[in-house]
Amino acid sequence: MTRFELNILGCGSATSTLRHLPSCQVLNVRDHLMMIDCGEGAQLEMRRQRLKFSRLTHIFLSHLHGDHCFGLPGLLSTLALLGKSGTLTIHTFADGKEQFGRMLDYFCREMPFTVEWDVIGTRTAIVHEDNAIKVTAFPLRHRVPAVGFRFDEKPKLRHIKPEAVQRWQVPHHAMNSLRQGSDYITPDGHTVPNAELTLPPDPCRSYAYASDTMPSRRVVHAVEGVDWLYHEATYAQDCARQAHARYHSTARDAATVARDAGVGQLIIGHFSNRYDDETPLLREAQEVFPATRLAAEGLVVDLNHD
Amino acid sequence: MTRFELNILGCGSATSTLRHLPSCQVLNVRDHLMMIDCGEGAQLEMRRQRLKFSRLTHIFLSHLHGDHCFGLPGLLSTLALLGKSGTLTIHTFADGKEQFGRMLDYFCREMPFTVEWDVIGTRTAIVHEDNAIKVTAFPLRHRVPAVGFRFDEKPKLRHIKPEAVQRWQVPHHAMNSLRQGSDYITPDGHTVPNAELTLPPDPCRSYAYASDTMPSRRVVHAVEGVDWLYHEATYAQDCARQAHARYHSTARDAATVARDAGVGQLIIGHFSNRYDDETPLLREAQEVFPATRLAAEGLVVDLNHD
Repeated sequence: MTRFELNILGCGSATSTLRHLPSCQVLNVRDHLMMIDCGEGAQLEMRRQRLKFSRLTHIFLSHLHGDHCFGLPGLLSTLALLGKSGTLTIHTFADGKEQFGRMLDYFCREMPFTVEWDVIGTRTAIVHEDNAIKVTAFPLRHRVPAVGFRFDEKPKLRHIKPEAVQRWQVPHHAMNSLRQGSDYITPDGHTVPNAELTLPPDPCRSYAYASDTMPSRRVVHAVEGVDWLYHEATYAQDCARQAHARYHSTARDAATVARDAGVGQLIIGHFSNRYDDETPLLREAQEVFPATRLAAEGLVVDLNHD
Repeated sequence: MTRFELNILGCGSATSTLRHLPSCQVLNVRDHLMMIDCGEGAQLEMRRQRLKFSRLTHIFLSHLHGDHCFGLPGLLSTLALLGKSGTLTIHTFADGKEQFGRMLDYFCREMPFTVEWDVIGTRTAIVHEDNAIKVTAFPLRHRVPAVGFRFDEKPKLRHIKPEAVQRWQVPHHAMNSLRQGSDYITPDGHTVPNAELTLPPDPCRSYAYASDTMPSRRVVHAVEGVDWLYHEATYAQDCARQAHARYHSTARDAATVARDAGVGQLIIGHFSNRYDDETPLLREAQEVFPATRLAAEGLVVDLNHD
């Protein structure tokens, strides 16, 4: 199975602590790295977790609160110093492009790589698509404009059965068509069903990121059926009023979204600095949605398995 | 003796490593904290070193390279979240005010404290003065405009000898004048020399920070006679050509500046990421100036003693 792996670089909330770093994670899709949010310290945490700067191709910013983006200038400067080449695409609102674009112009005058700004809006939209993956932004419900991101792997090719294609003497040029699901027609006109020649493709994996947000039906709809969901759980339920007043979620809220959306597994994060131990948040979420785990800096989740 | 203490928060150079953080230090002058440079991670390192955010009154930025200032937005945001009150003065060039002022306007709309921007130039000038200390900026020699900072304690009051003032029945209202060095004239006209009634004041301590810079006669002149000097030593002497091409210093350069300026003690820092062990830089410096020590994150130097 090709790699589809989530690296948690930071899962704290706005007030810095020694326990958690601000929001940042890296999704590894077949060894291409996509960063989601970029809190202060992101570059250092990439080093600590041995994530290769050269493989970073995209940065997706959920919203413009400092704990989700203040690591960007430092990361870009370091990438420049290290001589990164190619293109890095930063997906952010117009204000993000304006704020950080201006800093970049001033502080990183000579860039060995191209920064491409993809200005995104707050409506549901496909913000990136390549051979491997489709990334959809969807609206969150926060104090400022904010979006989540859903990553869906593209349908993959079927696996050839070597003995079967040998038996039917399928020529090399027909293989790709087989992998796409076509039947094979022999030179004398006989149809060999695809299922006889191939095995099903690897499953398409999916992941969604929703932080920062109040619990929202729109989020439930947007993340419906994903294999893995990261949903913020800044507070426990006994602080629900405070959570919602600040447009945040409780652990129970996150679990309810996961359950209602029928996701496979839930990871909760964006913990308030008031918690020295998030076990109560985990227990609270698991009462509603058992397949929940806590985010933590350095956590690597193989999104193929639980 | 009142506190005069240097806390090293970061002493690496531009390319981030797991060994060093980017430039940042905090000078504690009688429990008022003055930050010098503010590399990414400064706020976290303040927490780690248990330096109180509420006591931070000034930030001095030497120049506008990211490794000396990218920690500023995160630090200011955290101060706002923690409800800091009063005034924080940031001493920086006009460009620094423009860059970071704009970020602050966008990201920290509601500030419970006042940020005062003190726009400084590159010529020698007093940039701050209060009852305790005088801070002078002086030009460095770097690729971009850069200044060092010299901190000189103001002359202090003499210490009263309790038995002597009792013997001469000096009234309370005369004490301040005694502490300032005046003689005491008794009601019947007799002059008691000040030296009989007081002990000398505590010595005035001084510290200077010079990073980033090539070795420079102007720096020698500016830091003349300070008790403690922090001077960058990005490279060892075998990389002198590279050091100077990039407007940096070697360890031997730093030691030569310290010796020529007749300083008391030298701390070297701003180490290139090429060094896994800075002992060779220390040895090289000590050959020229024995009273040298290496900076390190978490190092606290009591600037009263060696």
